[in-house]
Amino acid sequence: MRLWTLIPAGGSGTRLWPASRKNWPKFLLPLPGPSSMLQSTWQRLAPLTTPEQTFVITGKAHVQAVREQLPMLPPDHVITEPEPRGTGPAIGLGAFLIARHDPTAIMGSFAADHYVADPAAFAKAVRAAIAAAEQGYLTTIGIPPRYPETGYGYIHLGEPLFEQNGLRVFRGRGFKEKPDLATARAFVASGEYVWNASMFLWRVDIFLEHLRALLPEVAETLAQITAVWDTPEREAVLAELWPRLPDVTIDTGIMERAEAIAVVPAEFGWADIGDWHGLAQLLAEHDGANITVNCEHVGVDTHATLMYGRKRLVVTLGIENLIIVDTDDVLLVCDRSRAQEVRAIVQELKRQGRTDIL
Amino acid sequence: MRLWTLIPAGGSGTRLWPASRKNWPKFLLPLPGPSSMLQSTWQRLAPLTTPEQTFVITGKAHVQAVREQLPMLPPDHVITEPEPRGTGPAIGLGAFLIARHDPTAIMGSFAADHYVADPAAFAKAVRAAIAAAEQGYLTTIGIPPRYPETGYGYIHLGEPLFEQNGLRVFRGRGFKEKPDLATARAFVASGEYVWNASMFLWRVDIFLEHLRALLPEVAETLAQITAVWDTPEREAVLAELWPRLPDVTIDTGIMERAEAIAVVPAEFGWADIGDWHGLAQLLAEHDGANITVNCEHVGVDTHATLMYGRKRLVVTLGIENLIIVDTDDVLLVCDRSRAQEVRAIVQELKRQGRTDIL
Repeated sequence: MRLWTLIPAGGSGTRLWPASRKNWPKFLLPLPGPSSMLQSTWQRLAPLTTPEQTFVITGKAHVQAVREQLPMLPPDHVITEPEPRGTGPAIGLGAFLIARHDPTAIMGSFAADHYVADPAAFAKAVRAAIAAAEQGYLTTIGIPPRYPETGYGYIHLGEPLFEQNGLRVFRGRGFKEKPDLATARAFVASGEYVWNASMFLWRVDIFLEHLRALLPEVAETLAQITAVWDTPEREAVLAELWPRLPDVTIDTGIMERAEAIAVVPAEFGWADIGDWHGLAQLLAEHDGANITVNCEHVGVDTHATLMYGRKRLVVTLGIENLIIVDTDDVLLVCDRSRAQEVRAIVQELKRQGRTDIL
Repeated sequence: MRLWTLIPAGGSGTRLWPASRKNWPKFLLPLPGPSSMLQSTWQRLAPLTTPEQTFVITGKAHVQAVREQLPMLPPDHVITEPEPRGTGPAIGLGAFLIARHDPTAIMGSFAADHYVADPAAFAKAVRAAIAAAEQGYLTTIGIPPRYPETGYGYIHLGEPLFEQNGLRVFRGRGFKEKPDLATARAFVASGEYVWNASMFLWRVDIFLEHLRALLPEVAETLAQITAVWDTPEREAVLAELWPRLPDVTIDTGIMERAEAIAVVPAEFGWADIGDWHGLAQLLAEHDGANITVNCEHVGVDTHATLMYGRKRLVVTLGIENLIIVDTDDVLLVCDRSRAQEVRAIVQELKRQGRTDIL
């Protein structure tokens, strides 16, 4: 196996509050369960790599939880990001650490909090992306858009490069930030755009060349950190240098500016579970179906309702289109059409100083 | 103080499930809180009597909880009803025990699970009823009907007997079981009927005369039990004789058949909290107001919703007309218009053998 993987495990997911918290973000939650999103991410990578070739990078507050959820990884492969600096520094550090083991490794980076319905189709896409990476491309896997989503970035497809196992691989013509609705509709109608799902594959040496060329100060700092990685100075150097790194994403820092970009459009039931309504849409087996996550449900005349629980019984009677999230210290009951506003409630509670429940 | 009181504390209240349980019935609940209904019953009687002149009769499973909620009562005044036999035997036993202390006491009996908004007006009604009881009447306090309720019994008023402190006392012309809607409407329209709120006052010797005459086998059995009350045989005799008692209410066994009945119509914000919707109606300060019992609430665009909790935070967004009942092991979310059907859910869970949550 040539694939080395990095799983950046970050993000707060305040729209999935009160299940997701500052100290227990989305990737640790059993969505849709029973495994956490992080565990599911690892499970679908497991056929493609090994625990010894996998790193997770996460915030200080989550290192312990990640090690407990992924006990098969070497503990030293769960690495601490002292503070969030975007995907640029996080993925860059992963690349430096992987290159120490295998300077021409194929490296893949996959977010810890995305949903994939069809792991076999995902693996097929990764294999096609590996083929492109082996040809020297900075490669990304993109999702054919199902509707004009304005919350995602888009990637413009260029000419076809090759076909592998039924999947066509294209040259990338550019990354687009989250568009307005009219632009998103045009993107979808053109058939030339895919959703950016933050899945990147490349030869690590080629990626590091780009990093040195395009983000030289990031590359220099990460090189200094990597130089002391196996020494007692690691923590001190990390603590000193990391905060000086610019906050930059791989998308804007590298991918938008690089020449040899490849894109693998592939459908494998990908979803970025943005809020409770999105989760309900994803999991409903048919229109009006109820969805239970981690709880027992007895319902009379109950429709299109999502219940996320703590294994205790939820009884419902004469309700529809509700979100019910039952946690140890907070109970949320919300109309599905208002799910996006959960974030505003979290912000208001923050303003009120209710940090105990955030 | 001449008043001795008996508080029959029974009833299951399955329509207030999951807050009320077989082992934790309605009268132990903080409705509307912070005191329990039983504690509130005692609190409004306290100005009229003393703990030493008060008895509670309740099921075996609740004796301990009643003693804990009413620590001011002599422990021996919380008496066990080995199994439910209706109000006839329960109130009859209370009368026998009170008569041992004061053979001509004025005795009052008041259910433990009724709500009274105005305790001062209640006390005034009790004083008028005491005056009627002193004249030898079996006396009841009735509630002027606010609407044609079909779930209550009614009492037909006869001629006025006297007036006391602004309250008129009437002769009672008969007790009517729960009527159909047309009959209830006719009762309300006539102005001659009051709701039967199960509040009885009488001289205990006169009540016992009636008991001996109208329910002689009940009187005989209760006399045998009372004879051994202060001996080690109490439990054995209770266990042997109580199950043989007929299941009979004071209303049908005595009040409907006695001659000298007096009725005190009085308004003091009485309510029999029958279900969650009834509780919400009772406690809402205005149309559309939310009601919280025993929980903290943060609501956005939330209307006419009752939240009954466990002191944890309930957050709601974009909902209305819901009942949310949050207990240790069961969460209920229910449309207010369906509150009566909670009883059916309890029966279904019982059929499924879910006794752990009933």
